[in-house]
Amino acid sequence: MTSIINRKTIRKYKNEDIPIEQLESLLFKASRAATMGNMQLYSVVVTRSAEMKEKLSPFHFNQPMVKGAPVVLTFCADFNRFTKWCEIRNANAGYDNFLSFINAASDTLLYVQNFCTLAEEAGLGTCYLGTTVYQPMGIIETLKLPKLTFPIATITVGWPDEDPEQPDRLPYQAYIHEETYHDYTPNQLDIIYYFKEQLEENMNFVKVNGKENLAQVFTDCRYTKKDNEAMSQGMLEALKHQGFL
Amino acid sequence: MTSIINRKTIRKYKNEDIPIEQLESLLFKASRAATMGNMQLYSVVVTRSAEMKEKLSPFHFNQPMVKGAPVVLTFCADFNRFTKWCEIRNANAGYDNFLSFINAASDTLLYVQNFCTLAEEAGLGTCYLGTTVYQPMGIIETLKLPKLTFPIATITVGWPDEDPEQPDRLPYQAYIHEETYHDYTPNQLDIIYYFKEQLEENMNFVKVNGKENLAQVFTDCRYTKKDNEAMSQGMLEALKHQGFL
Repeated sequence: MTSIINRKTIRKYKNEDIPIEQLESLLFKASRAATMGNMQLYSVVVTRSAEMKEKLSPFHFNQPMVKGAPVVLTFCADFNRFTKWCEIRNANAGYDNFLSFINAASDTLLYVQNFCTLAEEAGLGTCYLGTTVYQPMGIIETLKLPKLTFPIATITVGWPDEDPEQPDRLPYQAYIHEETYHDYTPNQLDIIYYFKEQLEENMNFVKVNGKENLAQVFTDCRYTKKDNEAMSQGMLEALKHQGFL
Repeated sequence: MTSIINRKTIRKYKNEDIPIEQLESLLFKASRAATMGNMQLYSVVVTRSAEMKEKLSPFHFNQPMVKGAPVVLTFCADFNRFTKWCEIRNANAGYDNFLSFINAASDTLLYVQNFCTLAEEAGLGTCYLGTTVYQPMGIIETLKLPKLTFPIATITVGWPDEDPEQPDRLPYQAYIHEETYHDYTPNQLDIIYYFKEQLEENMNFVKVNGKENLAQVFTDCRYTKKDNEAMSQGMLEALKHQGFL
């Protein structure tokens, strides 16, 4: 499992395609992930054409990975397929609700991670685009996603053309709780975030953005309350539009 | 990656503990999964005591894995830790909203799947309990989960004491779409679900439940509209209670 332990996000790819059989094989093997009631509540839209990458790009804030990767995969929660099957079998499907969205999104994300592990083990590099849920309606329209589907994660994938440093991670004591959740004291938080706050790269972020500390870079620049609230509204509306709320 | 390809859910475990160092090592290595802005928006509550397993059990419909496994792991979306850190740094955290819940839940599920892969590679068996989001308030109270945390997935883990058959999976054509989503015709659905419908085990389910076909077993017995709607309501209320909605 060295590929998991050495994993890093790859954002630059060689100008070299991924053979279709190899991609399909990885997408199939990934389906061994746990799935609710063995329903496999996901679909993957494979984007290879320059035209479709161009259309998707703005919904990912024009991050260069979208146009730079040979393949862009949009992983969608999907209760449409299962519901359509129920309909032709005269079965009364009841999956147009929030719990069903959560179930399908969970299936999808376990599948995504399994795919990434297999792809990285095969020498490919991946980048997870969290932007997928920021402006979901744009992606829904571009990829023609029907009701009871929802885009959850986008992975750009290709042969690595960079070898970045591995990013830091919190000490495991930060997120493991014995028997019940033990809330954090200010002192514990100082320890947990000490390493991250002292990193030269992060100290530079603070300076460049004119902030007092790293936390303010997150709250004032990267992930602001205002943006989060606007995008929350957009996502709830998209869930309604797709029939999940 | 044979452990991914040969993976199956393990529900029966040997009466043998998992050394704490081994568990912590797996939980740490799993943190290499992609995470939004490197925030690691998750926590894990480790249940080993018989008393806590007893308390958790009803919220998982008393499935025997909860009391039968040496370790039960409840993986929680967690914006509490990050928000508390922002507060002591005089940064204006804005993560009490739906998008932030989705971001944290996504981080959590990628991490869960990475953990399962590593655990299985180490010879452990795992079972994913989808019940975690069915009655979240019970789990929240039992594990004392504070605001801006939410239980997303429970994994029971232990040394396998069974070797079940691997379950079926859909053909990959069922869930891979080229360039845009291509909705399913009745004929395609017949093909996609043919293998599953013909399985002896599934034909038995249909007979035992007095149904016409497998789809009706799902809609009328296993995952009913009525249950899904009631549990959707419960989950939305729990999200409000935890400050995410």
